[in-house]
Amino acid sequence: MSRASIVGAGMTPFGVHESTTAEMFAEGAFAAMDDAGVETSEIEGLYFGNAMGGLTENDTHTAPKMASHLGLNSVPCQRFEDACASSSTAFKHAVQAIESGAHDIVLVGGAEHTTGQTGMDTPEMTRVFGSAAHRQYEQSVGMTFPAMFALLTKQHMARFGTTEEQLAEVAVKNHYHGSLNSRAQFGKKIDTSEVLESPLIADPFRLLDCCPFSDGASAVVVTSVEKSDQFDGEPIDVTGVGHAHDSVPIAEKDNLVQTDAAIDATEEAYTQAGIGPEAVDFAEVHDCFTGAEVMAIEALGLYERGEGARAAENRETRLGGEYPVNPSGGLKAKGHPIGATGTAQLVELTEQLRGEAGSRQVSDANVGVAHNMGGDAASAVITVMEAR
Amino acid sequence: MSRASIVGAGMTPFGVHESTTAEMFAEGAFAAMDDAGVETSEIEGLYFGNAMGGLTENDTHTAPKMASHLGLNSVPCQRFEDACASSSTAFKHAVQAIESGAHDIVLVGGAEHTTGQTGMDTPEMTRVFGSAAHRQYEQSVGMTFPAMFALLTKQHMARFGTTEEQLAEVAVKNHYHGSLNSRAQFGKKIDTSEVLESPLIADPFRLLDCCPFSDGASAVVVTSVEKSDQFDGEPIDVTGVGHAHDSVPIAEKDNLVQTDAAIDATEEAYTQAGIGPEAVDFAEVHDCFTGAEVMAIEALGLYERGEGARAAENRETRLGGEYPVNPSGGLKAKGHPIGATGTAQLVELTEQLRGEAGSRQVSDANVGVAHNMGGDAASAVITVMEAR
Repeated sequence: MSRASIVGAGMTPFGVHESTTAEMFAEGAFAAMDDAGVETSEIEGLYFGNAMGGLTENDTHTAPKMASHLGLNSVPCQRFEDACASSSTAFKHAVQAIESGAHDIVLVGGAEHTTGQTGMDTPEMTRVFGSAAHRQYEQSVGMTFPAMFALLTKQHMARFGTTEEQLAEVAVKNHYHGSLNSRAQFGKKIDTSEVLESPLIADPFRLLDCCPFSDGASAVVVTSVEKSDQFDGEPIDVTGVGHAHDSVPIAEKDNLVQTDAAIDATEEAYTQAGIGPEAVDFAEVHDCFTGAEVMAIEALGLYERGEGARAAENRETRLGGEYPVNPSGGLKAKGHPIGATGTAQLVELTEQLRGEAGSRQVSDANVGVAHNMGGDAASAVITVMEAR
Repeated sequence: MSRASIVGAGMTPFGVHESTTAEMFAEGAFAAMDDAGVETSEIEGLYFGNAMGGLTENDTHTAPKMASHLGLNSVPCQRFEDACASSSTAFKHAVQAIESGAHDIVLVGGAEHTTGQTGMDTPEMTRVFGSAAHRQYEQSVGMTFPAMFALLTKQHMARFGTTEEQLAEVAVKNHYHGSLNSRAQFGKKIDTSEVLESPLIADPFRLLDCCPFSDGASAVVVTSVEKSDQFDGEPIDVTGVGHAHDSVPIAEKDNLVQTDAAIDATEEAYTQAGIGPEAVDFAEVHDCFTGAEVMAIEALGLYERGEGARAAENRETRLGGEYPVNPSGGLKAKGHPIGATGTAQLVELTEQLRGEAGSRQVSDANVGVAHNMGGDAASAVITVMEAR
């Protein structure tokens, strides 16, 4: 049974934005509202995701700031911060609010600067991103996120024979998809040797295994299934939203070759939707690093544990393959403005399920899944969306 | 009709804590869970409020960190950041989740360091607090929060004849209440002349008109009304939770002698509870500055607009008066560890409505209201709680 519907979706291009966070969010939000054909006066609440605005721009309490800039009335506004999953937890709560009847129409979105406005260089921004790692046990030993996912990926390589060449194919695929997406930060194709010859960041990850720093914003308009036909935008149904956490620090995790939070959240989302992985036509997943995509598609059950690395190598996750993964280009090529990433996945799902994705359209796209993670694989939100 | 029930409440003393945020939160959370008689394995979700941890301690994504430290299972965890209202918006969403049937038992709380662990001096911490002000229009002109509430209070003085002496009586009252609360940061009584002779911070506010920087944590266990009799803690019902925002920057607000967000949220909360202000027996309000308490009790309808300043002067808001306000000592004397403040108000309401508040007990306390604001009077969450 559907829980809610998305009737409007919009986003900025991802990349470098010199505009303020409020201006940037307005660009994404008004695109979503225009798509839905709703006015600001109709919006009953704002669910906003932003991860690092306090650290990067000394800017907190951003929910009412965004609402004020949009000209929303005195409606309730709330900011969610769950690292890279911030706007997905915002979306989860928006769906609950719609489902419970608390609201009829809400705006959900996220925005983040990690380049343009911050004035921070790479070491400073790396420290800022590192704030999501365990304060005492991980930050103190310089454990950055490339290092974190490298540790998990090294375990995957040791256990299952996953190779650097297979990981490189994930990057090559996502850059190819990004070349078809005008909003992607990296619109240029790359080849396997470029990945393998790029500088080492955290073994086994090279520069081109890693997603970039990005600015951007994204938003969706959410309403009830019953009311969803009253809008301009073709409604896409939300049939499952799962949410779980796993232990921080990663040393406490039960298992380092898989992401338990995503596995638990996937089970919840599929159960709500009444589907299994075989029903999934495509997925947008949290490929902050190539190895993360491998574990993501295993967590979603699209591939058995240990089999995920072969998917890109065999072109099964490329457009035209069995399970197209990250048709948008993913975090890797589309970009990763942290707080905007979750709802940007939902924008892609909406466009694909409407059949409006142009040259990157997944054929026969009826069921899509978004997989968004936060921190050291500690938060996961999995969303199932379906065309009618 | 009751929406949910609180069956456990706990908090740390407020003041200076050298323990980590997770250790501090665990102290408050386990106190609440012990009060309710629930085990970690029974908790189905964590709704966590923290405002400034990124800026003060480079510590974000705190919801799963707190959950891991408590030993919660893979349950969904979410962090809310809505400035000083952070744990109240967390509570609002927890109540919605319980009401909708999504969860049966959840933990809600907040924690914050603004002294001990941060290593920041007053100017640095003032910059951090200032992050909740408008980035471009308020921060750029050095508009601190004392200045913000001073502007509103000056308008109140000009329009209604409110005096510095009346404001001082708010501080004197709250310090008196704090002297009865072993968890209060300031357990010492003060007199009117001490307030009026303390250094000027932002006209008309003197040092003793302002709440302190504080560390601390607080938590409540929330369940459904139906299940609330199965716990050790005497259940207190949540009958209304209102939430609204007002424009940021304050220059955009319609009215500078009142707090429209609190007025709108109060109307929503009272409507849900089916009460008017005459039914209220006492209130915990957001007295970040003495002038803020005056506007708070007017927003709650306990006093007509312009009449609030006479309440403390006439001892009507003191314990034993018509409407005891801030029997805990309030932000002014109990302390204000930002993310912990909202749920700490609910801890006080729970203890008062159970009749367990000892020497600061409000007589015949059957209906209590919590009034929590965030930022430049931009977010407000109003909660009505009732004894059975």
